[in-house]
Amino acid sequence: MQYSIGIDIGGTNSVMGIVDKMGNILFEAELITKDYEHLEGFVDASYDELFPQIVKLGKNNFKGIGIGAPNGNYYNGTIEFAPNLRWKGVLPLAKLFSDKFGLETTVTNDANAAAIGEMMHGAAKGMNDFIMVTLGTGVGSGFVANGKMIYGHDGFAGELGHVIAVRDGRLCGCGRKGCLETYTSATGIVRTANEFLETKSTSSLLRSVANITSKDIYDAAVQGDFLALEIFQFTGKILGQSLADAVAITSPEAIILFGGLAQAGKYIFEPTHKYMEENLLKIYQGKVKLLPSELRESDAAILGAASLIWNADKVLV
Amino acid sequence: MQYSIGIDIGGTNSVMGIVDKMGNILFEAELITKDYEHLEGFVDASYDELFPQIVKLGKNNFKGIGIGAPNGNYYNGTIEFAPNLRWKGVLPLAKLFSDKFGLETTVTNDANAAAIGEMMHGAAKGMNDFIMVTLGTGVGSGFVANGKMIYGHDGFAGELGHVIAVRDGRLCGCGRKGCLETYTSATGIVRTANEFLETKSTSSLLRSVANITSKDIYDAAVQGDFLALEIFQFTGKILGQSLADAVAITSPEAIILFGGLAQAGKYIFEPTHKYMEENLLKIYQGKVKLLPSELRESDAAILGAASLIWNADKVLV
Repeated sequence: MQYSIGIDIGGTNSVMGIVDKMGNILFEAELITKDYEHLEGFVDASYDELFPQIVKLGKNNFKGIGIGAPNGNYYNGTIEFAPNLRWKGVLPLAKLFSDKFGLETTVTNDANAAAIGEMMHGAAKGMNDFIMVTLGTGVGSGFVANGKMIYGHDGFAGELGHVIAVRDGRLCGCGRKGCLETYTSATGIVRTANEFLETKSTSSLLRSVANITSKDIYDAAVQGDFLALEIFQFTGKILGQSLADAVAITSPEAIILFGGLAQAGKYIFEPTHKYMEENLLKIYQGKVKLLPSELRESDAAILGAASLIWNADKVLV
Repeated sequence: MQYSIGIDIGGTNSVMGIVDKMGNILFEAELITKDYEHLEGFVDASYDELFPQIVKLGKNNFKGIGIGAPNGNYYNGTIEFAPNLRWKGVLPLAKLFSDKFGLETTVTNDANAAAIGEMMHGAAKGMNDFIMVTLGTGVGSGFVANGKMIYGHDGFAGELGHVIAVRDGRLCGCGRKGCLETYTSATGIVRTANEFLETKSTSSLLRSVANITSKDIYDAAVQGDFLALEIFQFTGKILGQSLADAVAITSPEAIILFGGLAQAGKYIFEPTHKYMEENLLKIYQGKVKLLPSELRESDAAILGAASLIWNADKVLV
């Protein structure tokens, strides 16, 4: 049996695991990312977690390490200026891991890793053309065309979260205005809720909640709360409009929604699908499936990163 | 020597030629597209023009026929519901040509054909990731990623002219509002001129022109006409904004502008580049070249279509 290692580096937590080619996760570990002042310390801690298991399964059976990381660059194997990490500048992530472990290491961003995981084990199995959209704290995406991940010229393709959904709209963490992720991420929908509560007089269950989360909005919607439903309509409209524009570029077979906000099910899927269809150029109407991810949220990060190794066209040493 | 045939079907005229692998056009002919009530008659007329030349060069030396056509579908070899052609519905274009000529025939839309021509003989030589944007009567585009044309799931990818540049903006021929091509095509810039002339009181050389064309706006700009320069600024701003969004999806090495409006040179390139840079996510800034096509306007259509044959991953018979 051959194995690969999948590591998902997040701003808060990082998860890692050993995965076989069928997508079974044989071992899992977690680190608190921000406990590590330097990337080198994080690499050492990962080694301490994983290496005993690698030895147990036989190091020769390991094909490599796949890492999904914010601003992970596929071509250089680097993390570059990731705003949510303590580790600043351009960091040779792949090199540090491959030197320490003696295993080939491939890096990409987390949404691309999720897309590859979905293609190997999830809702995009057998598809050559699809878009993966992650609706988490931010909005990420991975575009696959002709059966291959689009990394782009510089390794940073697929930033759907930063297309301008509303010209001169909400201020984004990236310094620009109106980015899709300021509206359709878990944090974006909370901004919408707070705006609606302030500008509308509709009564709502949300009025009695302090520090509203996206989960609160979902819970209110499930109870039929009119304002919560309106918040989902608004969010789905903006997401659907931006997806319609993305379809005009790559014309995918499906768009797969993943992440916290996607778990709101019909409350987000129905308006998103409706407004996507309304905004599609006629030749695309009725053709593009809008699907939920088929990977378990907890597994997806590790599976996706590990899949990089099976899928990699180019593996960095 | 091997040859291929390139045919560009336009709403008004169609051009066709015999091309060698170096990109030399050895023979050229033109037909008035709208003279032919049925596609079959057009195929016969093309045969009459081309076949004597094919015989002269030796039919066995011909590798196939490439056709760029409005709403041309790469996968099916069809034209599907092309609004600018007399021939309605779904038409088996590749089959009719291959049956008549006894040569393999590949079809795509005109902007994709131009992109392939540019990749083989023009400004995109050696590039794996670029976007071709044609600014003609409409706005077309071809996206290349990982060295391959993105045809999408249905063969219709790359409709950048129909991303929504201005939400609830100008009515487009496609029935929707605010499409990029209503602003940044040769016809779009004329709409802008007429709007500006009506809503602004600035004096302008254009005020004395009846039935303004994009060429008139260019001529006025060359003479330093303030309103004409403002029209180009406005057009470049909208184009630059939409290009910045497209970069966030495929992260190309270059964007190549082609077609009538691109010939306005610095008047369109400078504002487009400025506003594209201003609207790019930081990681893409200063990385994406904005280039003019290196194909002669008159050759590009034939060369691009012929290039389909050398480049085709899949050739329809």
